[in-house]
Amino acid sequence: MSSTLKIAIAGLGTVGAGVIKIIQSHSGLLNQRCGRTIEVVAISARDRNKDRGFELKEASWCENPLDLVSSDAEVVLELVGGDSGIAKDLCESALKNGKHVITANKALIAKHGMALAKLAEDNNVQFAYEAAVAGGIPIIKALREGLAGNEILGVAGIMNGTCNYILTEMEANKQGFADVLQRAQDLGYAEAEPSLDVDGFDAAHKLAILTSLAYGVALDFDAVHVEGVRDITIEDLAYAKELGYNIRLLGICRREDGVIQQRVHPCLVKLDYPIARIEGVQNAIYVKGDAVGDVVLQGPGAGEGATASAVLSDIVDIALDRFNYTFGKPVRDLEQGRFQSMQDHNAEYYLRIPVVDETGVLARVAQVLSDNGVSVESILQKPADTDKKADIVAITHKVKESAIFTVLDTVAKLDGVIGDPKMIRIE
Amino acid sequence: MSSTLKIAIAGLGTVGAGVIKIIQSHSGLLNQRCGRTIEVVAISARDRNKDRGFELKEASWCENPLDLVSSDAEVVLELVGGDSGIAKDLCESALKNGKHVITANKALIAKHGMALAKLAEDNNVQFAYEAAVAGGIPIIKALREGLAGNEILGVAGIMNGTCNYILTEMEANKQGFADVLQRAQDLGYAEAEPSLDVDGFDAAHKLAILTSLAYGVALDFDAVHVEGVRDITIEDLAYAKELGYNIRLLGICRREDGVIQQRVHPCLVKLDYPIARIEGVQNAIYVKGDAVGDVVLQGPGAGEGATASAVLSDIVDIALDRFNYTFGKPVRDLEQGRFQSMQDHNAEYYLRIPVVDETGVLARVAQVLSDNGVSVESILQKPADTDKKADIVAITHKVKESAIFTVLDTVAKLDGVIGDPKMIRIE
Repeated sequence: MSSTLKIAIAGLGTVGAGVIKIIQSHSGLLNQRCGRTIEVVAISARDRNKDRGFELKEASWCENPLDLVSSDAEVVLELVGGDSGIAKDLCESALKNGKHVITANKALIAKHGMALAKLAEDNNVQFAYEAAVAGGIPIIKALREGLAGNEILGVAGIMNGTCNYILTEMEANKQGFADVLQRAQDLGYAEAEPSLDVDGFDAAHKLAILTSLAYGVALDFDAVHVEGVRDITIEDLAYAKELGYNIRLLGICRREDGVIQQRVHPCLVKLDYPIARIEGVQNAIYVKGDAVGDVVLQGPGAGEGATASAVLSDIVDIALDRFNYTFGKPVRDLEQGRFQSMQDHNAEYYLRIPVVDETGVLARVAQVLSDNGVSVESILQKPADTDKKADIVAITHKVKESAIFTVLDTVAKLDGVIGDPKMIRIE
Repeated sequence: MSSTLKIAIAGLGTVGAGVIKIIQSHSGLLNQRCGRTIEVVAISARDRNKDRGFELKEASWCENPLDLVSSDAEVVLELVGGDSGIAKDLCESALKNGKHVITANKALIAKHGMALAKLAEDNNVQFAYEAAVAGGIPIIKALREGLAGNEILGVAGIMNGTCNYILTEMEANKQGFADVLQRAQDLGYAEAEPSLDVDGFDAAHKLAILTSLAYGVALDFDAVHVEGVRDITIEDLAYAKELGYNIRLLGICRREDGVIQQRVHPCLVKLDYPIARIEGVQNAIYVKGDAVGDVVLQGPGAGEGATASAVLSDIVDIALDRFNYTFGKPVRDLEQGRFQSMQDHNAEYYLRIPVVDETGVLARVAQVLSDNGVSVESILQKPADTDKKADIVAITHKVKESAIFTVLDTVAKLDGVIGDPKMIRIE
């Protein structure tokens, strides 16, 4: 293991550039930690002539990323992005040709992770992706290796910094979603096409990976229930605060009686829970293991340095020939998970119902709740600023989600209800 | 790698029993995660006949733990404890005989870790100790592997649950150190001989390990500055709170201009820092990496399940033949660290000076501070309950610790000062 570890890199955007900067600036350190030198032998990116702040004269340039597979690199870094196309082709080709693959591409893994894991196994190479979940936080390693002695009881966390930034800013500045999204875009915290983040899909990609690792089941992105933060209003944040909660977009997986919950949605979280106080673009992931209890990992979920740090962790693992099953077990041992339908979800709920400010409406709403067996912890009517309008806000006791949906449907048709009733789950 | 991994265990106390329970209850899970079966082939403990809640008929019993080395185990678990004697002899003998060693024994590592690491390297086996620092938190793996792409800028944390429990309880219940220690002992959170915990040595053992991993320097326990929590009073906690701080025993290593600080002592920590809100027996460790930024790991620092979880993480690593240098680099590459003398430490300080409640004393104290170039952020005189006594409490700006010691010496001799002045560093 004293020879050089040769790597090829496809994609020289933020992450690719960050990786090269670390390899160049920390060569002595990495050499000692790996027991061998790391050398970038081939690269491919969209624009050959762009000034990226570093020189890579010794690396050969490939116009076509797929040509990286023909280099003498042992490891190919797929940092192109996208859940199919060139990213997928490159990973497949590299694995088939006996090269380890490292990626930060959660969308690709969520869609094709099982097939890629199988390819890696068949070709005796590794498919590594520490950077794909929670940026710089070493959560993949913690879950797959550090907590390997545990049956995992649950994983929950803030897995998308953009959404957390938006919710934090909406609450702090009493600004609506659209305005804060615009600022996030201006600051580079959100993409021009923000849907992947704000509609919850990015968090869902990450959650699907964690669920597979946690429960040893086949990765199943389609089984993730996904909601984003688009419909959260400053009123919801204000009511939540008044009731002792904050609103956070959480990714949660949990197994009860052999059935797995796998869901991404906004949650009301009690203000005295640490996760309610995670602000801005930070990520935080809670893991409950049957032996260890609760372990929390917190840190930056994105950014050049954080993501590059995670990629380097995979490079060092491969340099030291540390073996990992892609999803913690051989692919043949990954069972099909049994996933819970949200209809069967059992939780407390926050309900908000826009009404006209008149006697009798509250009583009618309360009657519907009662008729459907939804018992209420607190219910209050808050006058809105505009005249003759109000909000009925209720916190329920634990109840099946199917009952909540019946309530929402029924309440919407009541006299005096003047807008769509909404619910947010409480964790 | 499909054969059985045979292990031998010395010590069937809390941790040893916890390890066996996991191996027995999670055999299917571990089999899949490791790609092989884990079997306990030999055990040794003080009392053969004690009922421990599990059967181990297939394992051979050794009256003398050293005889475990003659078994056909590939891995020996040293869970006896003690910084020398049988623990050391067993580790040495096992390593020399080509067996991997796993331990949770921070005292042993702090004292003999370098020699044991060398022995492991010379014999091509591993010396693993995830359980030695922060119990169930996978901090060794995070620092050595997960953040391997980073130059580490600093590590700081709550590394001793007993001290944190004591400080939390003193503050919450306004009870003195001795009373709370007694309760901690009754609850099993503190040993009958509490010095290792409350005088800071246990945290210092852990810190010395983290410093070596973080900076790639030879482990040097003697270079750790160690203070415990014995001298913290409920008055200190109350003054700190009033000034916007909590008091926590922190272990801190940091490198500035090539010089390493390595220190364990009580600190005033701003109430709005998350670490100030870590309560009870929890541990929390902050790592600052040059690429990743700040990463926090938090969880249970002790207990049967948490510690056994960490031991299992090492077992799984060895079962999968994952290689690690004991301290993150080959022993020959571990440089001698240059450590900072506390005289040169530069910080803000909390000072408390017991005085008679008379005009002029505050002015004389302020003069001494000024004479020694200690500039003060705030200073106040608080009457004590008993008559004619008061405390002068000051928060300084950043200043060298040598100046603080001159101030404390000089102030102690002033007219009107009626007890030993004390200082606590602010982080």
